[in-house]
Amino acid sequence: MNQAIGVIDSGVGGLTVAHELMRQLPGESLIYLGDTLRCPYGPRSEAEVKRFTWEMVNFLLPKDIKMLVIACNTATAFTLTELQEQLPIPVIGVIKPGARAAIKYTTNGHVGVIGTEGTIRSEAYATALKHIKADVRVNSLACPLFVPMVEQGVLSGERADHIVAQSLKPLKEQNHIDTLILGCTHYPLIIDTIQKTIGDQVTVISSSEETARETSTILEFHNQLQTGVATPTHQFYTTGDIGIFVKITEGIFKASADQFQSVSIKRAII
Amino acid sequence: MNQAIGVIDSGVGGLTVAHELMRQLPGESLIYLGDTLRCPYGPRSEAEVKRFTWEMVNFLLPKDIKMLVIACNTATAFTLTELQEQLPIPVIGVIKPGARAAIKYTTNGHVGVIGTEGTIRSEAYATALKHIKADVRVNSLACPLFVPMVEQGVLSGERADHIVAQSLKPLKEQNHIDTLILGCTHYPLIIDTIQKTIGDQVTVISSSEETARETSTILEFHNQLQTGVATPTHQFYTTGDIGIFVKITEGIFKASADQFQSVSIKRAII
Repeated sequence: MNQAIGVIDSGVGGLTVAHELMRQLPGESLIYLGDTLRCPYGPRSEAEVKRFTWEMVNFLLPKDIKMLVIACNTATAFTLTELQEQLPIPVIGVIKPGARAAIKYTTNGHVGVIGTEGTIRSEAYATALKHIKADVRVNSLACPLFVPMVEQGVLSGERADHIVAQSLKPLKEQNHIDTLILGCTHYPLIIDTIQKTIGDQVTVISSSEETARETSTILEFHNQLQTGVATPTHQFYTTGDIGIFVKITEGIFKASADQFQSVSIKRAII
Repeated sequence: MNQAIGVIDSGVGGLTVAHELMRQLPGESLIYLGDTLRCPYGPRSEAEVKRFTWEMVNFLLPKDIKMLVIACNTATAFTLTELQEQLPIPVIGVIKPGARAAIKYTTNGHVGVIGTEGTIRSEAYATALKHIKADVRVNSLACPLFVPMVEQGVLSGERADHIVAQSLKPLKEQNHIDTLILGCTHYPLIIDTIQKTIGDQVTVISSSEETARETSTILEFHNQLQTGVATPTHQFYTTGDIGIFVKITEGIFKASADQFQSVSIKRAII
């Protein structure tokens, strides 16, 4: 199977998923599409998110992808079931992998979830968690400042510490959870600050890492893992300003310059 | 889907997988079959392992299981592909989940694997690891004393410390690996001693935990997770002495008396 894995996101957050896919599946090629032009999806209506997501899917399908990863929480919440039913290839989203990992790690059965207002309001994580383990207790908290902070490139330092500390205060004061799901693909970029703030006694789960892990599981289960030693090629598309997208991508991939060399970034009209 | 998950093992080692399945999928019912009478499978020929495994499968299939977990490394190495091709239900083994988790956790790309002589000789883990990441370095080590030790109920204390220290000496002296796969379902029962011996700088991976995690992934992907609030029922069968099996099962489930109450144990003639 020399086909690529397709990855879609409302913008740049899904790059953390792409980065993990490249790390955990180093033989696989990716085609990424970020709808930066219309980001964020969080505050949009369900109908609009569905329409935009289908437009992204229709851009990637002719490129002969073998699997689709919805690397956006909002798009996952609104379109996963529909896409799984209607596409001829396996489709996974970012919500269930994070939920499943939390069930594996929690020992006191008390799980925290942080995300955008849209994701928290949708209760998608609480639903996914309780679907697996009916008696799990879930404390959800919207952190509306994190995405704008990350998009501005503020990933550490005093300002980041302050915003994260203020935002997580309610969860920290309750002091109940032993596991915290990062329910937004932007948040792995500030995972160190979040871990420091919430404390070492809490296991922090990156839905990006977990989604990459499950992509590997599903691909192998369908006998579709890349075999042989062909060098993968990665194509990244953005609907928005290519300069900003390149800058953010460089930032995310800064620790793996080799990988970044193999990435080509283009403007997409969808 | 009110059907149970079927779990087969050469004996009692697979109970660690069953225990994790009950923890990570608390709504699911299990039907477990341990071929204690003919344990261990490790030193047997491929033909014999295949025949015994099919006998176990044919015992479970009429019980209308919705998925099969091969909770034995030797049986996985010899029969997984065949069973996946021939059974009408999803089938997973214990090797790939452990390999995949190791790829996720390693940062230096140097992974250790310990298992029975048969499993190490088969190179099943090295093959699975390199299938995902061609340049991973693998140090394998057979630990033939661990299974007899566990079967005798020696799980901690001076004797266990000594046997584990002596067995792991070659791996510890090389000091290369940052991740260690427990490539035998007996080993999670002595994970604390293994972690203490190999050191905190090494991430120790239980293939039992990881297999339960992937069972959850595959079931949900196939839309076959148990829904509703029905209390699960668990049936455990052994081909051997029921007294010894009950004793070991009680030992494994000691920390979760509630779960053990819901387990019925019977003798199986296959």
